[in-house]
Parts: sequence; structure tokens; C-alpha cells
Amino acid sequence: MSDASSRPVVPQAGVARPGGRTAAVRGSVLSATEDALIEHGFAGIDLSSLARAAGVGKTTIYRRWGTPQCVVADLLDDMAARSVTATRTGNLDADLRANAELVVRTLTHPRQGRLFAALIAASTHDRDTKAALAEFFRRRVEEWSLPIIDAIERGEVPPNTDPIAVVRHLSAPLYYQFLTMTTPLDDLAADRAARATVAAMRAQCFAKSDAAS
Amino acid sequence: MSDASSRPVVPQAGVARPGGRTAAVRGSVLSATEDALIEHGFAGIDLSSLARAAGVGKTTIYRRWGTPQCVVADLLDDMAARSVTATRTGNLDADLRANAELVVRTLTHPRQGRLFAALIAASTHDRDTKAALAEFFRRRVEEWSLPIIDAIERGEVPPNTDPIAVVRHLSAPLYYQFLTMTTPLDDLAADRAARATVAAMRAQCFAKSDAAS
Repeated sequence: MSDASSRPVVPQAGVARPGGRTAAVRGSVLSATEDALIEHGFAGIDLSSLARAAGVGKTTIYRRWGTPQCVVADLLDDMAARSVTATRTGNLDADLRANAELVVRTLTHPRQGRLFAALIAASTHDRDTKAALAEFFRRRVEEWSLPIIDAIERGEVPPNTDPIAVVRHLSAPLYYQFLTMTTPLDDLAADRAARATVAAMRAQCFAKSDAAS
Repeated sequence: MSDASSRPVVPQAGVARPGGRTAAVRGSVLSATEDALIEHGFAGIDLSSLARAAGVGKTTIYRRWGTPQCVVADLLDDMAARSVTATRTGNLDADLRANAELVVRTLTHPRQGRLFAALIAASTHDRDTKAALAEFFRRRVEEWSLPIIDAIERGEVPPNTDPIAVVRHLSAPLYYQFLTMTTPLDDLAADRAARATVAAMRAQCFAKSDAAS
């Protein structure tokens, strides 16, 4: 019904999952989890249906994951591991715009957008899912902080800039629009997010010693 | 079990609901809806339980609202109508900070934070709820655009600034942190959101003629 190769999760080009039977089972189960989240949201996830959709034994899925929360946490872990690496062209404006455009592309992708919406919704009423989602974003933000660290090393950005805060600020207006408006995201929103972040960074709004200022 | 006066929905000081029996029924039902959303999320809303919790007849609630979606849309309408008016001190930095602090206060309020999380979650899998939530935010953003319009009239802000875009940009990092991180929001986050928004505004990132630039 669903297989790992059909999964559009911000895939890292050319990086397949490690092979083997265990990996194949995991791939099938995570694909089925993704499908269920997209179609029905978190409430639609139960392990028996996932086992059926993934074509694996019920015992396997209960023994290996145990709860819907654990499957979703594993999906988020897999999504983070398979996501695209940051763009590092040596031009900070271009790198930030590439990040913002990736967020827009992900959230406007018919399956990806619904997947992220379902994951965010799930995390609002389950503490473990919230922690797993926060960890997913932490890893993605850390990856995309690299071009900002590059720019700090080139001396283009104030040295006490918190690169993590910069990346979060860049994503924020895009997720906010996605969740609170019916107007679809577009490249103009990505461009504005990138420009606003650069302006705030140059005005030292993301200084690490914030607390002391 | 719940009555309108106990509802902490960003209330507008001193503005009670119009009286009368119909209004009293509505108040009880909306309070029960709020309680149900906070305790169980949208999935926990069914009209029979709401009727019981609100102490009104089942027929009344089915005839007046018909579906859980309609009750939630009416709750959002009531929340917008009862929300606090914008701060307009004549000092733009102070007004933006007041807005950011209100958002932080709302999202960190034990009941309010859970209510907003539940409403956002509900809107991700229901188109009507999404439209109602977007309308709630549209009204709130419009209200808080007034101090920015004041600043444009005072000549402090570029005249082609889109005040709606400014207000949305101010809220975005606060909602983004609320939904994607486990670190609690605080006044430092509000202060940073306000400063970053001012910096981006001065750099003309919210110019109305964006599309042409």
C-alpha cells in the first residue's frame, strides 16, 4: 500500500535508508504512519491498522513500538535523519532565502503540509509527541544554523549572534501563516521572512547576551 | 459546572456580554465548549455532552448550533468580540511590546494556552474551523494594527508600511516557539519579537508594494 520510496519527506537526495529486513519493516511502518497522519490525523493512528497497512505482523509492531506515540516519535526521528542538508553558498542572504523557500515548499506540498499540520496538532495534546516534535525542529534548526556560523566566521554577522535564534526567526512567520491564515504561502512570504531576519540580525536582535542587555 | 464569568478569554475589562436568556444559554454553552477543548481537544466535543455540561436542553443546542464545528466557530467569534483592545500609548515600541506581552501572557496562561493549542489543532483537520480561526486572528491583528497606523500618521514609520504584516510578524515567533519548542515563552521572547519587528519595519520589510519590488 505504501513504501518508503514514495515518501516525499524533505528527502536527502541520494541517501537511501540502510538496507536489511529490520530497516525494511521500519520503512513500511513509518510510511503507513505518515499515510495515516495525512489522512486522519493522530486520532486515526492505531497499531493494528498500521500493521495491516504496512504488511507486517501485529506482534512485530507492538513489540517494536508499543504505542502510537512511539511510532510517531520514530517517524520524526527518521524525518530529521532524511531531511535535506543546509545550503551553504557563502552568501548569507541566498542561504537564508534557500532555507525559507524549503520551508514554503514543504508546507505547501500537498502531503508534506498535511503531515506537518497533523504532527503539530498531535503534539498539542501529547507531551511525548511534543518532545519528539521539538527534537525534530531542534535538529533541523541546528543543521540550518551552519550557513549563519559560516557568515559569523567570515565576519559578516556580529560575532555574538545566536545562529539558532536566527533560524527559528526565519521559519516563524511561515509556520504562523500556515497555521493561522487561509492565504497560501508563496515565495514572496519566503523572501519577506529572509529579509526581515537579516534586518533584525544586523540590528543585533539575536545577540547571545540578550539576557544581560 | 462552568459559567461565563469564570472564562479567562483575554477578556475586555468591564465589558460584560449583553444580557437576556438567549445570551445566558450561549454563555453557558461556549464556556462548556472551552472547558471541553481544554480538557480533551476538539475530538472531545460532542453536542450532547456540551448540553449536559452547560445545563441546557439537547434540542436547544442541536437547533442553535447543529455541529461541533459551529459551536467552536461561535466560541472564536465570542473570543474576538471579548478580547482586549489594543494599547495605544503614542509610543510605538511600547505598543508593540504590549502586544507581544499580551500574546505571551495568553499562551502561557494555563487554560488559555491549552485553549489556543486545541483550537489550532482542531483547525488543522477541519476546513470550517480553520476559516473561523483565521477570522479570529484577522480581527485581533486588525485591532492591534491601530497603534501602527497611529505611528504612520505621526510620521515615525514609512508611510507604505503594511500594518497587518507588522502585527503578524510580531506574533509569529511567539506562536512558533509555543508550538514547536518545549522551552516556555517569557518576557524576553516578547521583547525580542518586538525589537526584531521594529528593525524589520525600519528596513522596509513590510512595504505594501512588496510585490513590485
